[in-house]
Amino acid sequence: MKPYAEMSREQLLEEKAGLEKEYQKIKELGLDLNLTRGKPSPSQLDLSMDMYDLIYSGARLIAEDGTDCRNYGGLDGIEEAKRLMAGFMDCDPQQVIVHGNASLSIMYDTIARSMTHGVLGSTPWCRLDRVKFLCPVPGYDRHFSITEYFGIEMIPVPMRADGPDMDMVERLAAEDAAVKGIWCVPKYSNPQGITYSDETVRRFAALKPAAEDFRIYWDNAYAVHDLYEDDRARLLPIMQECEKAGSINMVYQFCSTSKVTFSGAGFSAMAASIENRDSIYKQMAVQTIGHDKIKQWVHTRYLKDMDGVRRHMAKHAALVRPKFEAVDRILSRELAGLGIGSWIKPKGGYFICFEAMEGCAKSIVAKAKEAGVTLTAAGAPFPYGIDPHDSVIRIAPTFPELEEMEQAAAVFACCVKLAGVEKLLEGV
Amino acid sequence: MKPYAEMSREQLLEEKAGLEKEYQKIKELGLDLNLTRGKPSPSQLDLSMDMYDLIYSGARLIAEDGTDCRNYGGLDGIEEAKRLMAGFMDCDPQQVIVHGNASLSIMYDTIARSMTHGVLGSTPWCRLDRVKFLCPVPGYDRHFSITEYFGIEMIPVPMRADGPDMDMVERLAAEDAAVKGIWCVPKYSNPQGITYSDETVRRFAALKPAAEDFRIYWDNAYAVHDLYEDDRARLLPIMQECEKAGSINMVYQFCSTSKVTFSGAGFSAMAASIENRDSIYKQMAVQTIGHDKIKQWVHTRYLKDMDGVRRHMAKHAALVRPKFEAVDRILSRELAGLGIGSWIKPKGGYFICFEAMEGCAKSIVAKAKEAGVTLTAAGAPFPYGIDPHDSVIRIAPTFPELEEMEQAAAVFACCVKLAGVEKLLEGV
Repeated sequence: MKPYAEMSREQLLEEKAGLEKEYQKIKELGLDLNLTRGKPSPSQLDLSMDMYDLIYSGARLIAEDGTDCRNYGGLDGIEEAKRLMAGFMDCDPQQVIVHGNASLSIMYDTIARSMTHGVLGSTPWCRLDRVKFLCPVPGYDRHFSITEYFGIEMIPVPMRADGPDMDMVERLAAEDAAVKGIWCVPKYSNPQGITYSDETVRRFAALKPAAEDFRIYWDNAYAVHDLYEDDRARLLPIMQECEKAGSINMVYQFCSTSKVTFSGAGFSAMAASIENRDSIYKQMAVQTIGHDKIKQWVHTRYLKDMDGVRRHMAKHAALVRPKFEAVDRILSRELAGLGIGSWIKPKGGYFICFEAMEGCAKSIVAKAKEAGVTLTAAGAPFPYGIDPHDSVIRIAPTFPELEEMEQAAAVFACCVKLAGVEKLLEGV
Repeated sequence: MKPYAEMSREQLLEEKAGLEKEYQKIKELGLDLNLTRGKPSPSQLDLSMDMYDLIYSGARLIAEDGTDCRNYGGLDGIEEAKRLMAGFMDCDPQQVIVHGNASLSIMYDTIARSMTHGVLGSTPWCRLDRVKFLCPVPGYDRHFSITEYFGIEMIPVPMRADGPDMDMVERLAAEDAAVKGIWCVPKYSNPQGITYSDETVRRFAALKPAAEDFRIYWDNAYAVHDLYEDDRARLLPIMQECEKAGSINMVYQFCSTSKVTFSGAGFSAMAASIENRDSIYKQMAVQTIGHDKIKQWVHTRYLKDMDGVRRHMAKHAALVRPKFEAVDRILSRELAGLGIGSWIKPKGGYFICFEAMEGCAKSIVAKAKEAGVTLTAAGAPFPYGIDPHDSVIRIAPTFPELEEMEQAAAVFACCVKLAGVEKLLEGV
């Protein structure tokens, strides 16, 4: 089929009539599919259930250093948990602080602390007239919610094939001391699945921000979430690059075992320079007596080391990969050559990012919803929920069963075509 | 023996010589006992180990409402967890928000949120020149650390036998709009073990603070921690009293399963009016996707309901009671009639509070330390760590084994006597 943009009004009308019939049939199926969030499927969660066979009434929940994991204490986590998370984050275990069940909470806390107490002695951000954050777009909506909640002005920075537009990042960070940080998902980025190139990572490490309290928020959420064992993206370790560049205080790294074992019932960690870490300890000592060490104990006994993590993640990949491939296959079959949308086929992570024709995303999401397929709201991957081109849609293929995902992808493709035809007819 | 204060200089010197010999002998024992924190003993932790027999590879971790507890979601907790915590807090399950492993973190969060976002639309506290908190003393050091961390000025309010000095609380709250809250441990208070009287609770509910954003921080940490099944302290439910008084927005209540199952590896909760709750939800939705529901699942299956909790706590009491009674017995034997110290024999909670002669607490703690018995720092139960009379010492009897506790109590008594004699000799 030829590109829609090259069709005459008559051809478009004819196409539209066919699509409307198809759309009507879909609606009659009464589907109820939810593709909104990056949630593991029940089958993925089943993969880790044997972890709990390690804890039973007779188990000795004692850490390597003799700590009773059932009692209070151990503010920064047991050593073996730090070591495991250091493997996720390619850093020194000494740089790791182990936290509770959600890395999002660490990020929230880190921003909240900067608001009330500043960063390593800097002026608390709540006393400044303006605080700004750089936000590579499309990005992770929950990152943007945190900065929005604290009244931090968000500046979108376009994503390229190898990471954020670094010319823009360098310029904005260097020229404005109100710019205090940047949100990054450097590996299998949410939602595009892009992994930052070595060059991009090195340029991050070499940043010369005007603000002494500028920090890179390096959310390595998908550090081990490869779809292909023989074709893994390789992310240059940011902390090592920062060490080399003399900028180790400039980066905070985050990760968690969510989507490795149980979402929201694992543990998370932050990595930071020793100076940053010690400053964070001071707050943590006020905030908590310590995080759940039983979970740290069982996770480290179960996953053991990075080889164990890789083996476990390969099981996830076997379940998830067919869903990603189904989306790619169906979109290719339905949309190739029509010129009404594009997407990146990711090698890992949790999302596929679809870029529709300008002005079509909201319409596609609404049509899909009407046909029983709920997608993440159009605009969600942008600060303040505003996609200036109304074109980006995030697809989360992991949660539905394969057959459901195939069905949803076909519905989605129909909606994309219908929205595209309608858009073009407006202009003809 | 007659009171030290009635002894002549010669009698005191003779007593001192005897005590010094005894102290020397103790030091030669090379003891290493730690009575600093309110930690359960390993035997207490053993009580809950069979809880984990409920989770194994074949278990179905599904909440009553069908929620898969292994996956994301459920911001405010599963219904059965809310219901259980409502039992702890004598309130409506609808008022409960379930959190992570530490109620301390909820309190920290609540203060932090008030700093940056105010309370139900009030001016964020970080924009005010002065923010003050009322602090019943002696009190819980970790409460005071939170307010100190945020630069909140702490005003000590003396504890009476039935709770804080309510005349003072009423006056300070009513006359100064900078007074934004009060820290309370209303049942088996930390460190005195005092339970607020009905009258005190009603006066709290009837407070008319000048600040609209004044909140009572009602830390019901020892709600179920009775030492005597047949002699339980009864705390009037604050939320019901506030409902009656039309002041339900004025109170936040906190509790947790720490010291019920595993310290730091259970879950915690907050209770608040529906209006407060909904406002807190908005922040939580930014901060986390949800807390650990697997822990909620297993705790609710294990403890079941308040009857189950009572039965479980009776097992704790059987282990803890002899230690509390040993301290009381040994202190009575060693110190009765000497006029150099007093203590309350608590019916529950985790502490015994010793009140030494003025100016003796630091000396006693130092002497005990030298003899191998580490106590909570003198001054710790006061804002900024300053006990104006240098007289209060918190004893935490739960962690050591019974025999160790007996030994430690004897050492403590010797140090009290020695410090007392020394003090009196200064003045003779």
